[in-house]
Amino acid sequence: MSGNAFGALFRVTTWGESHGRAVGAVVDGCPAGLPLTKEDVQKELDRRRPGQSEVSTARQEDDWVEILSGVFEKRTTGTPISMLILNKDAQPGAYEALRHRPRPGHADYTYIARYGIRDHRGGGRSSGRETAGRVAAGAVAKILLAREGVEVLGYVIELGGVKASVTAADLARLGELTESNSVRCPDPEAAGKMISALEDARRGGDSLGGIVEIVARGVPPGLGDPVFDKLDADLAKALMSIGAVKAVEIGAGIESARMRGSEMNDSLIKGAEGIEFETNNAGGILGGISNGADLVCRIAVKPTPSISRPQRTVDLSTGEPVEIEIKGRHDPSIPPRIVPVAEAMVALVLADHLLRARTARI
Amino acid sequence: MSGNAFGALFRVTTWGESHGRAVGAVVDGCPAGLPLTKEDVQKELDRRRPGQSEVSTARQEDDWVEILSGVFEKRTTGTPISMLILNKDAQPGAYEALRHRPRPGHADYTYIARYGIRDHRGGGRSSGRETAGRVAAGAVAKILLAREGVEVLGYVIELGGVKASVTAADLARLGELTESNSVRCPDPEAAGKMISALEDARRGGDSLGGIVEIVARGVPPGLGDPVFDKLDADLAKALMSIGAVKAVEIGAGIESARMRGSEMNDSLIKGAEGIEFETNNAGGILGGISNGADLVCRIAVKPTPSISRPQRTVDLSTGEPVEIEIKGRHDPSIPPRIVPVAEAMVALVLADHLLRARTARI
Amino acid sequence: MSGNAFGALFRVTTWGESHGRAVGAVVDGCPAGLPLTKEDVQKELDRRRPGQSEVSTARQEDDWVEILSGVFEKRTTGTPISMLILNKDAQPGAYEALRHRPRPGHADYTYIARYGIRDHRGGGRSSGRETAGRVAAGAVAKILLAREGVEVLGYVIELGGVKASVTAADLARLGELTESNSVRCPDPEAAGKMISALEDARRGGDSLGGIVEIVARGVPPGLGDPVFDKLDADLAKALMSIGAVKAVEIGAGIESARMRGSEMNDSLIKGAEGIEFETNNAGGILGGISNGADLVCRIAVKPTPSISRPQRTVDLSTGEPVEIEIKGRHDPSIPPRIVPVAEAMVALVLADHLLRARTARI
Amino acid sequence: MSGNAFGALFRVTTWGESHGRAVGAVVDGCPAGLPLTKEDVQKELDRRRPGQSEVSTARQEDDWVEILSGVFEKRTTGTPISMLILNKDAQPGAYEALRHRPRPGHADYTYIARYGIRDHRGGGRSSGRETAGRVAAGAVAKILLAREGVEVLGYVIELGGVKASVTAADLARLGELTESNSVRCPDPEAAGKMISALEDARRGGDSLGGIVEIVARGVPPGLGDPVFDKLDADLAKALMSIGAVKAVEIGAGIESARMRGSEMNDSLIKGAEGIEFETNNAGGILGGISNGADLVCRIAVKPTPSISRPQRTVDLSTGEPVEIEIKGRHDPSIPPRIVPVAEAMVALVLADHLLRARTARI
Repeated sequence: MSGNAFGALFRVTTWGESHGRAVGAVVDGCPAGLPLTKEDVQKELDRRRPGQSEVSTARQEDDWVEILSGVFEKRTTGTPISMLILNKDAQPGAYEALRHRPRPGHADYTYIARYGIRDHRGGGRSSGRETAGRVAAGAVAKILLAREGVEVLGYVIELGGVKASVTAADLARLGELTESNSVRCPDPEAAGKMISALEDARRGGDSLGGIVEIVARGVPPGLGDPVFDKLDADLAKALMSIGAVKAVEIGAGIESARMRGSEMNDSLIKGAEGIEFETNNAGGILGGISNGADLVCRIAVKPTPSISRPQRTVDLSTGEPVEIEIKGRHDPSIPPRIVPVAEAMVALVLADHLLRARTARI
Repeated sequence: MSGNAFGALFRVTTWGESHGRAVGAVVDGCPAGLPLTKEDVQKELDRRRPGQSEVSTARQEDDWVEILSGVFEKRTTGTPISMLILNKDAQPGAYEALRHRPRPGHADYTYIARYGIRDHRGGGRSSGRETAGRVAAGAVAKILLAREGVEVLGYVIELGGVKASVTAADLARLGELTESNSVRCPDPEAAGKMISALEDARRGGDSLGGIVEIVARGVPPGLGDPVFDKLDADLAKALMSIGAVKAVEIGAGIESARMRGSEMNDSLIKGAEGIEFETNNAGGILGGISNGADLVCRIAVKPTPSISRPQRTVDLSTGEPVEIEIKGRHDPSIPPRIVPVAEAMVALVLADHLLRARTARI
Repeated sequence: MSGNAFGALFRVTTWGESHGRAVGAVVDGCPAGLPLTKEDVQKELDRRRPGQSEVSTARQEDDWVEILSGVFEKRTTGTPISMLILNKDAQPGAYEALRHRPRPGHADYTYIARYGIRDHRGGGRSSGRETAGRVAAGAVAKILLAREGVEVLGYVIELGGVKASVTAADLARLGELTESNSVRCPDPEAAGKMISALEDARRGGDSLGGIVEIVARGVPPGLGDPVFDKLDADLAKALMSIGAVKAVEIGAGIESARMRGSEMNDSLIKGAEGIEFETNNAGGILGGISNGADLVCRIAVKPTPSISRPQRTVDLSTGEPVEIEIKGRHDPSIPPRIVPVAEAMVALVLADHLLRARTARI
Repeated sequence: MSGNAFGALFRVTTWGESHGRAVGAVVDGCPAGLPLTKEDVQKELDRRRPGQSEVSTARQEDDWVEILSGVFEKRTTGTPISMLILNKDAQPGAYEALRHRPRPGHADYTYIARYGIRDHRGGGRSSGRETAGRVAAGAVAKILLAREGVEVLGYVIELGGVKASVTAADLARLGELTESNSVRCPDPEAAGKMISALEDARRGGDSLGGIVEIVARGVPPGLGDPVFDKLDADLAKALMSIGAVKAVEIGAGIESARMRGSEMNDSLIKGAEGIEFETNNAGGILGGISNGADLVCRIAVKPTPSISRPQRTVDLSTGEPVEIEIKGRHDPSIPPRIVPVAEAMVALVLADHLLRARTARI
């Protein structure tokens, strides 16, 4: 079964393992005529790349993308866009010791359970490296969205228990604030505390979890395909499909469980350009269809499972319990690097539904 | 675009509006040879039916299912199973006053934004009535799962701020405890408080949200199709596609954002029948593939949007602000009735992935 | 696996067995706002119904369709259109004698080989009765196409070796000519000979094959999705999926194998409203995309496998060879009745690709 | 819409243009544990490569394949298999003169009609070069099939009006006979005449069509998913999706239209290992499901549209009629080179249905 493709009309298939020759993505269904260059894609990949700051992994991933098809004279042609990123800094030998010893919190054991075979080098297909293909495809989606006035922005709002405060004023320059520090938090004060917390965790051979919020502005009302392919349902799948994500919230999210109907319901009001909503507990989606308000979602990201402390597991070749220590280069926290990946997934969902909406009426 | 179907191999298409002739489901891809009777499906529909207790809506939905195809001599034949449930107690006239006045918290406005036309009677397709088809299909999935030793159980763990406590001892008789009260909460003491809170809310013309937990036991390791069709990704979509759900958690869920790697990681241990996990923060899924531990998910359900208090909206025929009051019969809280729906969605995902797993190896 | 659905955006799922309670179809993805009544569908079903003439089976199928959902105030709402046709004249007992004796030329043996179980009454799911659902769905597709100026017409051009001659003048009143005789052949002289041939075959306890041509006029250039979902590829699948079809031709079809490039290539010329083609060997499709010329396809239909002559088979309960005679009511030839079914399948493909084309450009 | 992928469970996505950087294929859904090397794929690509003989195009395509993912220690891992073939001998300049002048019989005009933009160099995506990706994917499918005892063989049975005669004795060494001459015809005498006919056509600046037959042996009974995804329906789509194919026949094909039921029906007989069929007019498929007999299909291939004779077309930049002559290297006939492509498509369908059949029963 082919689980490596996402989207119905704007569809991406990703491929590649952490320490294989390359990773890549094929985007099928991108409308013809869209201006697209390698630089548009590279820009997003650069945001995903590790090694950007003191708090992320030291592995040097160059991540140079090549566009092999689907673009002619700087425009998309309607044919598949194949993008390839070579794996350069692979050190597969580093993983040999763990070949038969599944790392806690990783997919090592479950891949064996499913497939009976596993490319164990650096996590293989279950590595975060796989997300390079998502980000490349998401870059194409973002260009399509931008033409329709839709912008997708992600940022860290909580890390290691430190919560950020994002004011209305911040929202105007969210992208800039987010990229101004290594934890991608638009609240500079909180960002400082998060960095300290990360340093503490790293020194203790441990890691931290956090929460990322993704906002899409300019989403027109009418996107989403009830009843199963609701916009929020597809967003939930898209975001939960990113490794390390353990929860997805839309709008008021978990808190809506503690509200009364009279608090939760967003009143419709007469706005300058038509219907608006007084509040946005819905997070921009009603009955699975966008309502024109900002689309707001959040993901809970678990702490990096690769920690340097000793951990208990079972050696699959002997069936005996063993203790392992994970060497190598690992981020002490995933949220800052997951930001562009989460944006990419939201952009892919929106691009797909933008096209789907074209067939909703005669 | 066809958003009314769910699943890749075990696939259900639902159809029908709240106040149309009927609602139904077609299950395509159910393996041949499965014992199936009308009673198996009716039993689950009875759990979904409103009017079962003092806290749910007074509408009498008989919900008698008919199996029109796909079963021969009490066994499935591998051909589509078409199930139909007539709408009997429809009172469409009650909705005429709201035809042009979108109810806050409902899909009224967004259906118009998408389709330009809307069957406004009782919410039409966006009504909770649509879930009857899901429950019918889920009943078939449950029988397939039961053959493999998989059981799916849902229950309310929080309602109107009242939290239930579920002990290890309770888990042994979870189904029985859950069905013993009208709020489907396995903790009798909490259930009592929840019922009081609901009565309070109802008297105030208001409604309450809550949290439902769904556990699947006996799930074999190896289910789930990385990278996009991860088991948790498909569960997130399945659950978020249910109306009123605003968040989905797997395992430790939101709390994983506040944990350290050394706390979050579940150690692998040598169990009686192979690998086991010391804890279950992962909620039974690693890298998108089941690990053999209990599968645990939770959904946050918003308060019922139909409340009898006056609410502000805009009349679409005049463009002017108006105040509306919603008459009719409405549950003051959705979680107790959503339990069988959530179970059905989890069962559909597991049945689909059970079949998908058959093709994972040569 | 769910093989009972067809189409990507305009998608139909059919269900039902020959002698079960009912057959039906669910159309998902029909754009909102399309005028649709029960009569529109009934009209097409009436064309498919047997018992219309001396040459078709005597079974009385009333085929009254009910539209159970997806239509509100005589327009489609964008939600699934569920259509149901009760089975009234079923005589399942007539098939008991053949329960374990697969009829030559039928799917009896292969259904057992695949599923291990089979609803043997009247062919069950493999019966021609299944096509009622296709015709109902095709009726909806035809209305969508008519709005865009596309018309789909089928007719018998060969039966029992008798070939029809269709002149340019005939093309102007093709529908009328076709429906004027019981073999649906627009050439009245050939029709007379075909009817005689059928009577001969029936008297001899035998049956005849034939060829049906389907033309779609007004197809705009640009429909079809290379490389695998070419318009001709999807038509080939659609038509070959009809029982008894053993070949599909597009344009010059088989004869193109005997032509030279200089004969086969259709020259582009300057027409009144843009590009036209001097000839139409391509059958309206180049590189899998419609070119604006008439779309022309043909299907070869095998003789009805149910013949009253004695035939040899093997009794599956004993494993021994036996001779069988098939009782009951059977058409001596399928082509006349397959015409509306083939039109429906072509209409479904075109409706789907009409919607798909909406996303081909930015 | 994503039309560049084929298959439900064993799914290939191809990408790439004739004169872009590379062409390739991603196979998703191949079961884990299958032995696979680059050489297995290269062997099939070598058969597709032009320049093998005096009758095929002189372009030197090296067609070296690289497997970039999905294989570890010479076995598939269940993750996507990405294969890439660089385009080395591209001469895009040769096509500049035809940029605005659609070649008759080619997709030039229709790509513009659909996408408004076209990579005109060498046909771009509509070039036969695209089939390299199909052949690479088909090579993987063939290995999966071989494990189950299924073999797929294609050969030319008619070319330029010359018909081959294939005896029962030939069938035993069909592969060898087919590869023994440049027209891939197992009848050496007919092959000689075909080669002469080709030389004649080439000298006249013209081209020839022909017929290719594909046989699959060892197909187990039970493959195929009625009603729309019948085995023959999927084969028809697969084969018709190859450029230049204008007709697809199964078993007796077109001739079945001229047979009587008593001639067409294949009697079931008691064979050494179970049910067998006395004749094989069905071509191995009944009701869309394989019956265990040899699967037989044929395709009619039109003459190469690129001929050196002057042809009439319209210049799209001026709207005026013009005469063009096509320079460059072109095969005077497609059938010999289409053989491995047709085999690949049949293998892809069978591999997909082999996996699908695993879920047909409980």
